[in-house]
Amino acid sequence: MSETQTYPVEARNRVKRRHDRGFYDHETVHRLLDAAALCHVAYVVDGQPYCTPTLFWREGTRLYWHGSSASRMLRNLSEGQPACLTVTHFDSLVLARCGFNHSADYRSVMAFGQARLVTDPEEKRQALVMMVDRFFPHRTAGLRQSTEQEIKATAVVVMEIETASAKIRAKGVADDEEDYDLPIYAERLPIRTVIGAPEPCPRLQPGVARPADLAAYRAERPLEEALAEAHAAVYRD
Amino acid sequence: MSETQTYPVEARNRVKRRHDRGFYDHETVHRLLDAAALCHVAYVVDGQPYCTPTLFWREGTRLYWHGSSASRMLRNLSEGQPACLTVTHFDSLVLARCGFNHSADYRSVMAFGQARLVTDPEEKRQALVMMVDRFFPHRTAGLRQSTEQEIKATAVVVMEIETASAKIRAKGVADDEEDYDLPIYAERLPIRTVIGAPEPCPRLQPGVARPADLAAYRAERPLEEALAEAHAAVYRD
Repeated sequence: MSETQTYPVEARNRVKRRHDRGFYDHETVHRLLDAAALCHVAYVVDGQPYCTPTLFWREGTRLYWHGSSASRMLRNLSEGQPACLTVTHFDSLVLARCGFNHSADYRSVMAFGQARLVTDPEEKRQALVMMVDRFFPHRTAGLRQSTEQEIKATAVVVMEIETASAKIRAKGVADDEEDYDLPIYAERLPIRTVIGAPEPCPRLQPGVARPADLAAYRAERPLEEALAEAHAAVYRD
Repeated sequence: MSETQTYPVEARNRVKRRHDRGFYDHETVHRLLDAAALCHVAYVVDGQPYCTPTLFWREGTRLYWHGSSASRMLRNLSEGQPACLTVTHFDSLVLARCGFNHSADYRSVMAFGQARLVTDPEEKRQALVMMVDRFFPHRTAGLRQSTEQEIKATAVVVMEIETASAKIRAKGVADDEEDYDLPIYAERLPIRTVIGAPEPCPRLQPGVARPADLAAYRAERPLEEALAEAHAAVYRD
């Protein structure tokens, strides 16, 4: 995939506030998506907006996420309905010399499209494999196979990205020039999301060891690094 | 405030999927909100849902967040429009012995109401103070005062929580009983969001030290602890 491909800029994805922070190229958008497991999806039912957190993954220009067949979000999806999937990497709180310049560093993506239920059996079976293997490469092959009932009870949603934008602030303290002369304390307070020490299930059978494929997930590593590495091991685009 | 107050359970906030994970009491909902700085807000413009990340805070049963007067979200807010504000604490990835039982531990809140612009000058001035002081107690008093232009350029949105729900999964690996006999590796992979070493602005004036009020924000501390402590120092409910 060429690194110069971009998503179309239109009314719904144009970065309006602080447009200097906006990016539309596939590379930037996809890199931020692939470094995340958690997203928030906005959708509308009877005029009421909902914002639902869920795990998701990207395959090309498609986003997949899952839910139970009983969930509210999925009831009206068979026809496809407009959705917005957002990922946010929260990088810092910024303490400035005036209230107005207090801010945060972040890297976010908003992706727009029509969400629809995956109903084709083969597409769904493949998606249920990637729902695990995207995070933990090659893991499904070593698991107890899914039952028909389990497959039926899991709904998979797919959304072709019609358009998207990334928004990035990464400059820490940025005060008005004349304010730097003031005797006021200012700082950038970094925030990071990290992996803790893995907690093996206390009921493991004797001799069952942690697979080498999980090596990317090690204590104190930034979660986004491990997620990006796992994605790259499975999808090569 | 009594700890037994609850939000009304109705169609839009009832936890449908895994209803055993649902909570509606003020104490649980508010505790999860006050441990966060980042939220995602869903709203609708011309039938199109948007999911926007932003900083927010709680005051009683009201939620406040901010944006520029130029932002898309705020254009149609003067009359009030339905919104859903969601906070998610992402606590682990769970690797089970079958695909279906792969999961995540999390604590989330979805809050519903009508979002409206804060237009009353005194209410807005007070909100702009709390936008800083809620995170960094007593900080505004020591800052360069906001100009009229800065106040005008900052839009504040408020939403009275009409109803809300919390959803919590906190059980790590939970396999089907018969699957524990299988020679398959399973683990809980903890995830935490922590504060890094504060980075003082390189342009501080000589003798300007870090205020004691920032002591809650120290390296390696979970961000949610510092945020909850700061909230409790400012709001006593």
